[in-house]
Amino acid sequence: MLRHLPRIEDVNVLVDAATRDDAAVYRLAPDRALVATVDFFTPIVDDAASWGAIAAANALSDVYAMGARPLFALNLVGWPREKLSLDLLGEVLRGAAEVTRRAGCLLLGGHSIDDPEPKFGLVVLGEVHPDRMLTNATAQPGDRLVLTKPLGTGILTTALKRDLLDEWATALEPALRSMTTLNEGAARAALAAGVRCATDVTGFGLIGHLRNILAASNVGARIAFAKVPLFDGALEFAKRGAVPGGTRRNYEAADVAWPAELDEAERLLLVDAQTSGGLLLAVAPTCLPALLAGLEQEATPAAAVIGEILPPAGGLRVVRQ
Amino acid sequence: MLRHLPRIEDVNVLVDAATRDDAAVYRLAPDRALVATVDFFTPIVDDAASWGAIAAANALSDVYAMGARPLFALNLVGWPREKLSLDLLGEVLRGAAEVTRRAGCLLLGGHSIDDPEPKFGLVVLGEVHPDRMLTNATAQPGDRLVLTKPLGTGILTTALKRDLLDEWATALEPALRSMTTLNEGAARAALAAGVRCATDVTGFGLIGHLRNILAASNVGARIAFAKVPLFDGALEFAKRGAVPGGTRRNYEAADVAWPAELDEAERLLLVDAQTSGGLLLAVAPTCLPALLAGLEQEATPAAAVIGEILPPAGGLRVVRQ
Repeated sequence: MLRHLPRIEDVNVLVDAATRDDAAVYRLAPDRALVATVDFFTPIVDDAASWGAIAAANALSDVYAMGARPLFALNLVGWPREKLSLDLLGEVLRGAAEVTRRAGCLLLGGHSIDDPEPKFGLVVLGEVHPDRMLTNATAQPGDRLVLTKPLGTGILTTALKRDLLDEWATALEPALRSMTTLNEGAARAALAAGVRCATDVTGFGLIGHLRNILAASNVGARIAFAKVPLFDGALEFAKRGAVPGGTRRNYEAADVAWPAELDEAERLLLVDAQTSGGLLLAVAPTCLPALLAGLEQEATPAAAVIGEILPPAGGLRVVRQ
Repeated sequence: MLRHLPRIEDVNVLVDAATRDDAAVYRLAPDRALVATVDFFTPIVDDAASWGAIAAANALSDVYAMGARPLFALNLVGWPREKLSLDLLGEVLRGAAEVTRRAGCLLLGGHSIDDPEPKFGLVVLGEVHPDRMLTNATAQPGDRLVLTKPLGTGILTTALKRDLLDEWATALEPALRSMTTLNEGAARAALAAGVRCATDVTGFGLIGHLRNILAASNVGARIAFAKVPLFDGALEFAKRGAVPGGTRRNYEAADVAWPAELDEAERLLLVDAQTSGGLLLAVAPTCLPALLAGLEQEATPAAAVIGEILPPAGGLRVVRQ
């Protein structure tokens, strides 16, 4: 829908849709900017409270990806009241409220609508100092790329929906934990280490959100598949065809010169549509040790250096090692 | 979903979900508060650009109903991309952008999702001085109730959906014009006249939103059906059964001691679920002349005094005259 948005010329607009960043940022005063984001989706897990919790962590992530602090949120609900009980909706809202409370984010209202299929999400408002915000437009050649959560939530939740998990039933647990883990700690570590460039990996997958960094920052990048953290079982289920529609569309749109050494399942992981995925950070080599130490303290054990930023002529290169 | 929201204790929260007001209000500084609202719905008219324009005016109305100035907005889109073209979505977004531009409200982004049925709406952020905001919690016994737009959009758009309009085809035009008319002028007139109590009439109908004023302000009210402005044709189509589900639900939940002198169609108008309805203002008698003069200048010709606020023991009384 981006091409239908009018072009903005306003000195207080610090981030709009043009750079496909994670949230809009509007300057309220020289030292204060408002961050606004909205996200909602259909159920991706069976448990209602878990779905609510994941939706909340996912929506909050856009605020953390801008280096901001969440202030308050509004619930967005689509609900088939003839088919599903309002108690079940209560479970969704309870799961979300637990996560927003953990984030210190107030829930001040919302909007609900009759909907043949259930949907849930949140509007989140946050605040950031304009000089300390993280955007996707500040990557520099030579920066290292760090991803803070494993990939594969789209494929694993699709395997769940298709009842493929059987002996892999426990494979979903790390992904569930990851999706309800706030990116707050990762963002804090990034800000403390002097990082200025971040995005979160969600519906467009690692490649898609990296592409947004490359376009907004006018740089290239190289990523090494072998260094990218993946959830156990994700490759297996990609091979067995548990590929969500969004991941398939990302794959078709990826426009990557895939190396022959990566099979299709491996490529699909790199474009897998994530829910509540990790932060993707571009960090100067001098800041990298402080960032990695900070991420370790913030309990992001999967965080890994997965590649580096190149000059613009480098384009996007994907390699195995 | 209100009962599932956690109770809020924060001095900066000026309006939360507890009073069922039109938007959340959060104090950023002694002289600045942030107003946030979200609204979205399925198509209510045939023309895509008109639908977008109505959705935008409707979402902006919540900001005006708090006495606030809109800052920026985010689009919310549910779209069946297999069934409906993206060009048609472009028309919806264009219609919305024209209205937000008229409101001086920037469009900074949004979120879209695959959806079997199309949906559209907006998140709107606004700003208000905490001492000059309009809420639904400040009505006083003796205040006059003023409604700034006629009722009947729910019934008329349902008649349109059911292909009942035939010789009444032009009946929809005043309602269409009304639904794309911003409540900005009405809010400006209210603020200039010293009004402190306002809400906008939307999905819960006149009675439902008046009920919210009564509960939040701890007052009663009396309204006279004969004084309530109605769109031409609305009574006729209510008699012919063109009653939307939301209006039917409002009627069942209304808990009003209906006077025998009002027939069912007349009662249904008073609970008709409105889209982009008018402001409902409670105004001290001393401020009423200035308000009515201001509303006339702001081109709200249908504005009418429809009743008055009573002490709490008065409850809600509906009469004909």
